[in-house]
Amino acid sequence: MSNDGAADKLETATLAEAVRGGDRRALARAITLVESAKAAHQDESEALLAALLPHSGKSLRLGITGVPGVGKSSFIERFGQHVIAAGHRVAVLAVDPSSKLSGGSILGDKTRMEDLARHPAAFIRPSPTGGTLGGVARRTREAMLVCEAAGFDVIVVETVGVGQSETTVADMVDLFLLLLLPSGGDELQGLKRGIVELADLVAVNKADGELAEAASRTAAEYRAALHLLRPGAETPVLLCSAKTGQGIAEIWQAAEAAREALAASGVLGHKRAHQARAWMWSQVHDTLEARLKADPQVAAQLPALERAVMAGELAPATAARRLLQAFLGPRKD
Amino acid sequence: MSNDGAADKLETATLAEAVRGGDRRALARAITLVESAKAAHQDESEALLAALLPHSGKSLRLGITGVPGVGKSSFIERFGQHVIAAGHRVAVLAVDPSSKLSGGSILGDKTRMEDLARHPAAFIRPSPTGGTLGGVARRTREAMLVCEAAGFDVIVVETVGVGQSETTVADMVDLFLLLLLPSGGDELQGLKRGIVELADLVAVNKADGELAEAASRTAAEYRAALHLLRPGAETPVLLCSAKTGQGIAEIWQAAEAAREALAASGVLGHKRAHQARAWMWSQVHDTLEARLKADPQVAAQLPALERAVMAGELAPATAARRLLQAFLGPRKD
Repeated sequence: MSNDGAADKLETATLAEAVRGGDRRALARAITLVESAKAAHQDESEALLAALLPHSGKSLRLGITGVPGVGKSSFIERFGQHVIAAGHRVAVLAVDPSSKLSGGSILGDKTRMEDLARHPAAFIRPSPTGGTLGGVARRTREAMLVCEAAGFDVIVVETVGVGQSETTVADMVDLFLLLLLPSGGDELQGLKRGIVELADLVAVNKADGELAEAASRTAAEYRAALHLLRPGAETPVLLCSAKTGQGIAEIWQAAEAAREALAASGVLGHKRAHQARAWMWSQVHDTLEARLKADPQVAAQLPALERAVMAGELAPATAARRLLQAFLGPRKD
Repeated sequence: MSNDGAADKLETATLAEAVRGGDRRALARAITLVESAKAAHQDESEALLAALLPHSGKSLRLGITGVPGVGKSSFIERFGQHVIAAGHRVAVLAVDPSSKLSGGSILGDKTRMEDLARHPAAFIRPSPTGGTLGGVARRTREAMLVCEAAGFDVIVVETVGVGQSETTVADMVDLFLLLLLPSGGDELQGLKRGIVELADLVAVNKADGELAEAASRTAAEYRAALHLLRPGAETPVLLCSAKTGQGIAEIWQAAEAAREALAASGVLGHKRAHQARAWMWSQVHDTLEARLKADPQVAAQLPALERAVMAGELAPATAARRLLQAFLGPRKD
């Protein structure tokens, strides 16, 4: 039971049933299986997902991002407890392509969410380690499906607000919450360009004590900015304090209301269907690129072609054609 | 000379020389050649690009977008004339995947920029028609290289602010200018989410007469919003009127200053090298996807797989693996 190999031996159907029955060891084992990059695990992993898929999809999927220092773990700890107290079961997953085997920069250190982690209605899983963003995200997405089949009806997907992973997370959730610092509008939030516009909900954390006033000011500024950027859609900008708990209930309320509006308008079903299809295609592209790069004929030419393209000595289209010819053979039409 | 086939007959080297010598018919013919999707033209087109590439890259590449009604053509007409008066040669290209053979929604109607089009120091080319956004953009990008080799030192790439083409255009230019209407901050600008954050320069057009005050207010609001969204980088937000010509000189000044700063810091070379590489990869992906979709084994399965994925009956990863197996054969590792 304690080694990863155990998953191989347990029948898929039995494992799927144990997951659905709420067995936490089975859940962990199932996620380990779908996270496995080993070819030998692929059939089993796919059979497991096929068995669980009909029971997935019923959760509220919430992405959360914010720069380091904004207090994401404390927020999720408070927020998770509130949501559990409201009668839900919460799974917290993470997408962090920078995380190492030794424990990632987010959620690797479980002690950061100690109370939530101990709660029987919560499940916390650190980011899958190693591989490309696409690979890490695929495994998180599949872990999400497994958690849903296990009866978790709120899935929080955490990421750091400084890289490309936000777009990827936004593409797998129903709603995206951006946590901000009370910055007074002058200091840097260090967010990557484009992230603010991904947000369906914004919350200014640390809105307590002497930062309360700065937090209100920041909220007002972002409210005005979002009004310009996303005309028509009023993005809620709220205040909260993970320390005192103030505002946490309102954020959950806003998330539930936004989710209900999405479902009632039919946008949710549409969004999820398109997310799933886009996901399929992004994996097709990732795999094709990996296979192309692994091709010996391509590998022999790629460094020189990339160098020439970057130096402006070769047109990108010409380089692309050479790579494709090396990989697929000459064009026939 | 009047049919496209003529390009085939002229020796590539002679054509390249004529382009560089400022022959406008040769320029038009060269662009027609690099825009051609015919396999028979590919070798010739690549040879031409190879001959012209060493003479390209010296222009200021400026993307311009804004919703229909913002006055893009009148702006470009005024702006182009100002830039020409300052001693430059201006080429105006367009990326509009919605354009039809019968004349696209932008620049198809040349009469819209009548005075500029007649100027010997200007060259105006409508959007390539047909094909995917990737295809349209590739052809525009290559037309840009040809124009540069022909001595145009300011290239304006126009697009409409309502689709995906903005990101694509931002990926091929040095600077991206967003034109806004004096909206008073309440009305819809109709811009797609994410476009404001792409802008390196913002200009509120129609800042004349009774709209002057609303334009100033809009500029102030966007200035505040951009300050939050892009902390550290002060994005210039200017006022102009394509009708009176007011503010046009300031926009050109701001573009030149931004371009000089990019060049002086070394960011420009870095940016262009990465744009070229990303371009190569996006073409590799587009072509692989097209080849995959054209594969009879894939085509037989794709509709059912997409449907099952969108209905939540099949995991995207499983569908992706089946498509790849149909295309490339079973995985070997």
